[in-house]
Amino acid sequence: MDISEIKALTFDVFGTVVDWRSSITREGRRLGEARGIDVDWSTFADDWRAGYGPSMSRVREGELPWTNIDALHRMVLDELLEKYGITGLTEEEKDDFNKAWHRLAPWPDSVSGLTRLKKRFVLATLSNGNVALLTNMAKNAGLPWDCILSAELFKHYKPDPETYLGAASLLGLEPGEVMMVAAHQNDLRSAQKAGLKAAFVPRPDEFGPQREVDTTPDPAFDFVASSFEELATMLGV
Amino acid sequence: MDISEIKALTFDVFGTVVDWRSSITREGRRLGEARGIDVDWSTFADDWRAGYGPSMSRVREGELPWTNIDALHRMVLDELLEKYGITGLTEEEKDDFNKAWHRLAPWPDSVSGLTRLKKRFVLATLSNGNVALLTNMAKNAGLPWDCILSAELFKHYKPDPETYLGAASLLGLEPGEVMMVAAHQNDLRSAQKAGLKAAFVPRPDEFGPQREVDTTPDPAFDFVASSFEELATMLGV
Repeated sequence: MDISEIKALTFDVFGTVVDWRSSITREGRRLGEARGIDVDWSTFADDWRAGYGPSMSRVREGELPWTNIDALHRMVLDELLEKYGITGLTEEEKDDFNKAWHRLAPWPDSVSGLTRLKKRFVLATLSNGNVALLTNMAKNAGLPWDCILSAELFKHYKPDPETYLGAASLLGLEPGEVMMVAAHQNDLRSAQKAGLKAAFVPRPDEFGPQREVDTTPDPAFDFVASSFEELATMLGV
Repeated sequence: MDISEIKALTFDVFGTVVDWRSSITREGRRLGEARGIDVDWSTFADDWRAGYGPSMSRVREGELPWTNIDALHRMVLDELLEKYGITGLTEEEKDDFNKAWHRLAPWPDSVSGLTRLKKRFVLATLSNGNVALLTNMAKNAGLPWDCILSAELFKHYKPDPETYLGAASLLGLEPGEVMMVAAHQNDLRSAQKAGLKAAFVPRPDEFGPQREVDTTPDPAFDFVASSFEELATMLGV
């Protein structure tokens, strides 16, 4: 493939750029210690994340009107607090814990790899996370995006084609001039169907040490790299 | 006013952050020298800018469907090329000249002032320029935005209230937690009407040395500063 065709890279964020599981577990433990709540916070994190897909599907299928991720995270959180029998949190504490998703920590190679890639390409998020979440996360973690793009701007969640095509259009580019970077093969296949290029950066630890992730890449992907640093090298930066 | 209420600053861009007149004049002269076109490029720049408001009004009033600034700039450019009797430019040359708006140079205090302000506030554009234009401009000029917000995201041009309210909403903030920063009093008055705070940073040279700009500030504005550096100092950064 001719790399000079690629003008912009769009990134999945949760799992691809940031390690949501460790971050949510850490913030849960901190809250638990402060408030004397004894639960397995890594399982809590897994449950919170597991509620995310189904809640987005309710939006994608029209069962819910457009609802952004902050609000969906909060719906799932409220259910989990009940399920885990956690009571007595103030509204402020619940809101702050919900905003833990704005403070997720990057994988070790994320900031350095993005900083290299930014020299040559326009770098944008293309996440189901809402604009405020992605903006606050970038500020907190030092992620050097050129532009924050989000499903929220299109009122469609990935993998709806409106998200990939909408991102290319806002960047003033043809779909084939944009490459989606993600740890999730489904996201990349949908991006390719919309005409984007695809780089697979598997994150085998995304779901913790117990859960195995199939990282065998779809042969249709344009690039497969083990880190953003390796991707930068492959792209000649 | 309690500065701690302000969480984000949204910036008008053309004229407030960047000096469109000098930049367009410079690029016009370069094109003119390359192609042997002898016109007064600063007047050409003024005419190009003068066509911008009326073309946006046609969109705001529904005479044109939603059309982004790249396309409006191009409509005005094509009219001006005819008016000035400039012929023989290739499509590539015209497109490149139109994209001079993606390469506008910042005022001398813009990058340093924004860099200081970014330490404390979320910084976003809130411009009628389209997302690609603002993203490319930031990359080219080193403008350290946290987030690119544009009229294009709301399909409404400033001063429609949808732009100011939409920006606050995407940032996850109340209108009163956002302060609009602009060199144009009309923009600031409209932002205040929508509930935002307002900082006036007059740019007396925006329209060149011949045209006087009334920089007497509306007493309703929350801050008046002569540069982004001075604004940073006023805001305690």
